[in-house]
Amino acid sequence: MENQENRVAQLIAEQKIEMAVEPMPIAAPGEVVVKIEYCGICGSDMHFYQHGRIGKRVAPFPFVLGHECSGYVAQLGEGVTTLAVGDRVALEPGVPCGKCEFCRNGLYNLCPDMRFMAAPPYNGALKNYLTHPADMCFKLPESMTLQEGAMLEPLAVGMHAAKRGGVTMGKSVCILGSGTIGIMTLLAAKALGATKIIISDLVDNRLSKAKQFGADIVVNPKNQDLEQIVMEATNSQGCDIVFETAGSSYTMVDTWKYVKRGGVITVVGNISQEVPYSFLEISRREVDIRPVFRYRNIYPLLIEAVSSGKIDLSGIAPREFPFSQSDEAFQYTGNNAQDVIKTLIKVSDNH
Amino acid sequence: MENQENRVAQLIAEQKIEMAVEPMPIAAPGEVVVKIEYCGICGSDMHFYQHGRIGKRVAPFPFVLGHECSGYVAQLGEGVTTLAVGDRVALEPGVPCGKCEFCRNGLYNLCPDMRFMAAPPYNGALKNYLTHPADMCFKLPESMTLQEGAMLEPLAVGMHAAKRGGVTMGKSVCILGSGTIGIMTLLAAKALGATKIIISDLVDNRLSKAKQFGADIVVNPKNQDLEQIVMEATNSQGCDIVFETAGSSYTMVDTWKYVKRGGVITVVGNISQEVPYSFLEISRREVDIRPVFRYRNIYPLLIEAVSSGKIDLSGIAPREFPFSQSDEAFQYTGNNAQDVIKTLIKVSDNH
Amino acid sequence: MENQENRVAQLIAEQKIEMAVEPMPIAAPGEVVVKIEYCGICGSDMHFYQHGRIGKRVAPFPFVLGHECSGYVAQLGEGVTTLAVGDRVALEPGVPCGKCEFCRNGLYNLCPDMRFMAAPPYNGALKNYLTHPADMCFKLPESMTLQEGAMLEPLAVGMHAAKRGGVTMGKSVCILGSGTIGIMTLLAAKALGATKIIISDLVDNRLSKAKQFGADIVVNPKNQDLEQIVMEATNSQGCDIVFETAGSSYTMVDTWKYVKRGGVITVVGNISQEVPYSFLEISRREVDIRPVFRYRNIYPLLIEAVSSGKIDLSGIAPREFPFSQSDEAFQYTGNNAQDVIKTLIKVSDNH
Amino acid sequence: MENQENRVAQLIAEQKIEMAVEPMPIAAPGEVVVKIEYCGICGSDMHFYQHGRIGKRVAPFPFVLGHECSGYVAQLGEGVTTLAVGDRVALEPGVPCGKCEFCRNGLYNLCPDMRFMAAPPYNGALKNYLTHPADMCFKLPESMTLQEGAMLEPLAVGMHAAKRGGVTMGKSVCILGSGTIGIMTLLAAKALGATKIIISDLVDNRLSKAKQFGADIVVNPKNQDLEQIVMEATNSQGCDIVFETAGSSYTMVDTWKYVKRGGVITVVGNISQEVPYSFLEISRREVDIRPVFRYRNIYPLLIEAVSSGKIDLSGIAPREFPFSQSDEAFQYTGNNAQDVIKTLIKVSDNH
Repeated sequence: MENQENRVAQLIAEQKIEMAVEPMPIAAPGEVVVKIEYCGICGSDMHFYQHGRIGKRVAPFPFVLGHECSGYVAQLGEGVTTLAVGDRVALEPGVPCGKCEFCRNGLYNLCPDMRFMAAPPYNGALKNYLTHPADMCFKLPESMTLQEGAMLEPLAVGMHAAKRGGVTMGKSVCILGSGTIGIMTLLAAKALGATKIIISDLVDNRLSKAKQFGADIVVNPKNQDLEQIVMEATNSQGCDIVFETAGSSYTMVDTWKYVKRGGVITVVGNISQEVPYSFLEISRREVDIRPVFRYRNIYPLLIEAVSSGKIDLSGIAPREFPFSQSDEAFQYTGNNAQDVIKTLIKVSDNH
Repeated sequence: MENQENRVAQLIAEQKIEMAVEPMPIAAPGEVVVKIEYCGICGSDMHFYQHGRIGKRVAPFPFVLGHECSGYVAQLGEGVTTLAVGDRVALEPGVPCGKCEFCRNGLYNLCPDMRFMAAPPYNGALKNYLTHPADMCFKLPESMTLQEGAMLEPLAVGMHAAKRGGVTMGKSVCILGSGTIGIMTLLAAKALGATKIIISDLVDNRLSKAKQFGADIVVNPKNQDLEQIVMEATNSQGCDIVFETAGSSYTMVDTWKYVKRGGVITVVGNISQEVPYSFLEISRREVDIRPVFRYRNIYPLLIEAVSSGKIDLSGIAPREFPFSQSDEAFQYTGNNAQDVIKTLIKVSDNH
Repeated sequence: MENQENRVAQLIAEQKIEMAVEPMPIAAPGEVVVKIEYCGICGSDMHFYQHGRIGKRVAPFPFVLGHECSGYVAQLGEGVTTLAVGDRVALEPGVPCGKCEFCRNGLYNLCPDMRFMAAPPYNGALKNYLTHPADMCFKLPESMTLQEGAMLEPLAVGMHAAKRGGVTMGKSVCILGSGTIGIMTLLAAKALGATKIIISDLVDNRLSKAKQFGADIVVNPKNQDLEQIVMEATNSQGCDIVFETAGSSYTMVDTWKYVKRGGVITVVGNISQEVPYSFLEISRREVDIRPVFRYRNIYPLLIEAVSSGKIDLSGIAPREFPFSQSDEAFQYTGNNAQDVIKTLIKVSDNH
Repeated sequence: MENQENRVAQLIAEQKIEMAVEPMPIAAPGEVVVKIEYCGICGSDMHFYQHGRIGKRVAPFPFVLGHECSGYVAQLGEGVTTLAVGDRVALEPGVPCGKCEFCRNGLYNLCPDMRFMAAPPYNGALKNYLTHPADMCFKLPESMTLQEGAMLEPLAVGMHAAKRGGVTMGKSVCILGSGTIGIMTLLAAKALGATKIIISDLVDNRLSKAKQFGADIVVNPKNQDLEQIVMEATNSQGCDIVFETAGSSYTMVDTWKYVKRGGVITVVGNISQEVPYSFLEISRREVDIRPVFRYRNIYPLLIEAVSSGKIDLSGIAPREFPFSQSDEAFQYTGNNAQDVIKTLIKVSDNH
């Protein structure tokens, strides 16, 4: 490692990423240094890139984006015995305190002291080397690629949503929105045993992809009646679980129309507007609304699911950019939101 | 029973109840005839009385109101072995089919074929004699009065809400609305072990009653800042469970402000208006919204709780009217909504 | 139906089944008459056949065996709207009362008034025609065969065990015993997402079949060290869930050796002997023991799972016998316990 | 603190405790120094005292016993903001790693790297000053005494057992054994809402105490038929939850006789012998066996329960000894096992 340079992609203004160099990090006890190989671009990264902020959370320029990452263990801190130099790992990007009430109860995603990559004030993963707690680095089996390792993060969002929603064998599912998170929720729901999956989106291209990933019914509400299709497909019962993944008031407001009595509405998208919601409709049906915030305790099971073939990420076909073209990668992703499911930056490719 | 007359209080128009006579009922197999002693007036009864309808549900005049009732077993149908003539019983007013998917799964309150007293087209309990399935008649121990038996129904709503909300030992609770259901939720939450109960209402008189029933903190939002009081009382965490019992858009819209990360908002009231809700706020906290629809599997535990003294209903001090003054009872209740917690009609008192 | 004869296979003594004729049944309200097509032989049927009793439960000769059955709806009782004459159905063989505490809570398999086919005093399904409640007859989609319909019953046992044991995506599982129920548990665990399945049996032939059905590791304790193999396969943690399906004291006594801290031991087999058990070992690990009794609320999800291909029963390749050779079918099954996974009697084949 | 001496009670041989002096500890970051006020004697302490070992776990002389303790915060380590010098605290005696799979999932009592007081190789609390993580020190409200603070530890065992067993409002409970842990389980079950509590013991004196603490029925199996009494008290159903707290094979073997269908048997005692158990009996009833190992996430709720009066520890009336008489305290406790519920050593009393 001594002769290596630690390059970093810094957001220095809205829509402007420049490459810089940082000192090489050193692993503290319990940590490892990871040589990052791949880092994906998330919707939140894109939002910081385009607007320099997400609501009240302002990116402090220069700011490092990226939290969907994988790489090689390059150095072991004191006391680390579960990893070895050279291990291929996926990084869970949030580091909880491990001691608060939420952590002690297993709800560490709610830890108020969480340090999460690329969530101000914490910098992200778009750099050659970074330190990370060893227990948040998950070794990938040989059957998994580092691209897949980087994509575990958005898959974690979908899987946490599917588990919180209660998807199990035989359940029927309606997913509103077929963007990246909609697709990840679809993959998770299918892996958990959902036997009827209806997905809707306003963009036909996205629906085609959903179909490829195993959706049973795809619906474009522009020219189809989603409620009617759901009812026909479910013996007029509605779906067991409805997922809002579009982050839109327009889809959220109708969620109760598609859900079965005693079912669950899972809010996955970030809905920034107020939604004029008819709570009486969910009261009559005793339907729960369960929003999700990131995920918890989920990387090991994702690795089991992907490496065993229960979840197949190969169809994602991410668009790759070399590290030096990070700015171009963000520009491209912003301009092709309807076509690309996932953009990966190959951080090890310094050219 | 042969010489008895079966008088019935019939709603024959909006705001007009008249007494009439019906044939004596006969218990079918598995049923009993119950001689009704007490029947309470519920908010839904009052709504039918005043408007002849609740939303799309229209009362078919003549219509019999009342579903909070208790009485004596007067006749046993074939095969009934768990009850004896003369037993004092509380009646669970809804009769599910026992065979559908919801019933088989224990969610019988969601049974689509539920026959529920005083929910059109089914008549209610304001009559001297009615038939009811034996398994929905719960024998009262000697330590309980028939007035208490009639009040188990609104208590069931509060207990189901408290259980769905996850109230257990040591939880903090915020109850919005101190009407009948707010008080019943308070009694249930306290019995389940809540150690900090904050209740709010715009009517001071109701808050005084809540205080008597064991609320730790009472708040009138007209001149107090509920959010600030909740935060001070909970070490700036918010309450574990927030109950909306007022059925108001104005209280519902603020529910997220009072709830802890990972907590629960329980919707008990019927909120007929659309609520401009900030789902992003519950997403950030991963807070569930769990509405309730009636209750299930709860009478036996209520009888245990009341008869053992874990719940004390004596403070309710219901206002009683003789059966012949049923119309007056409804008029009085409508005019004194802020003062009376519960009105009971003594159906056995034909004078 | 008028001209049909209702033949029945009667157990008239230990190891002696004779054909007889019964009157044609008539569907009461809510019931249907089913023309039975296939009926499987269960271990309990075999036990009654061989010994005339299971423990204290004595078969009252003449007695009709069989509870794993499928057929065609032949007549509709009054009020039945969910089925039509000619529908292909699988029959859930137990009929709960629908009204007791257990039924109301969704635990209907524990109903004390359960009427279960071929459990004395109730006769079983080895007859051409029988009546059954419509809500316990589950329509099969076109993609499923009636053989598969009959095999849903043993699959239900495996699925209930897997669900009670908490099998979900990514769990590791150890199944002790690779007989019919072991195989069904394996199929269920795999469908629920188990990614590591270890199965043991003393008979190599059974292990070969388990391998075909997707077991990851098969172990014959006669010449292999199961504990060591489990520990090597689970990073020295033990399996998340251990299933005892052999019904043997010898396998039960060692269950704690294979299970992870905080895991579950599921007792599926009927273990008639006392087991010298080291409860201290499960106390140290806080491991639950969860036995299962039949199943509940599970046919709809099994039909979803089989018809969607998530569970593939085709490898069972049941051995079929015509109805008139019912006695031979039992003899054969008893003599070939190590080879045959399932014997089906084709009840419609009267030759 | 500078001028203080840190005295320590050392077990230097079987049945021999001597006082010694240790250096004053210094709080590391995140820790506090606690001046111990009270420390109780647990059954495991007594076992180490009498035999120098518990099974394979050998006390390395000199060894410090004690893990039921309370005291005053005497020094704050770096970064500690939740406590202040002088705060009265109860200490949760086990310190989990906070990072392993079990910790991350909220099951920290199963953490394989747990450092637990007085569990070899870790020394216990019988010393004037010790360091402890701040997040495992729970501030006591003014309404609680330090004696109560020390007794939270055995109460935690009872409460964890009661919660794991599923005790809630209206449940019936049978507790086998009325020693310290039996009494603590009784207090916890009562606080969680159990309305019928039957407790058995072979020692009448202990049963009298159980009666004082609120048991509804006390049974001495020497001259009473426990099964018959349970059945009479539960309408022939059995109790919802049965607790084995005696740690005896003789009580464990009969647990299934007292439990309701679908109920739970909770193993609280450490049963060192093999138990000839009839698993078929729990299979028939689908009864879970749920053992407990220590507790987790429970001190805050215990403090709520005790300080609010929902649990009243005042009846325990612990027998107190000054620190210098620690050896006598152990001798006394060993000799009076049937009379004393809890012995406390007043560590601050150096005389």
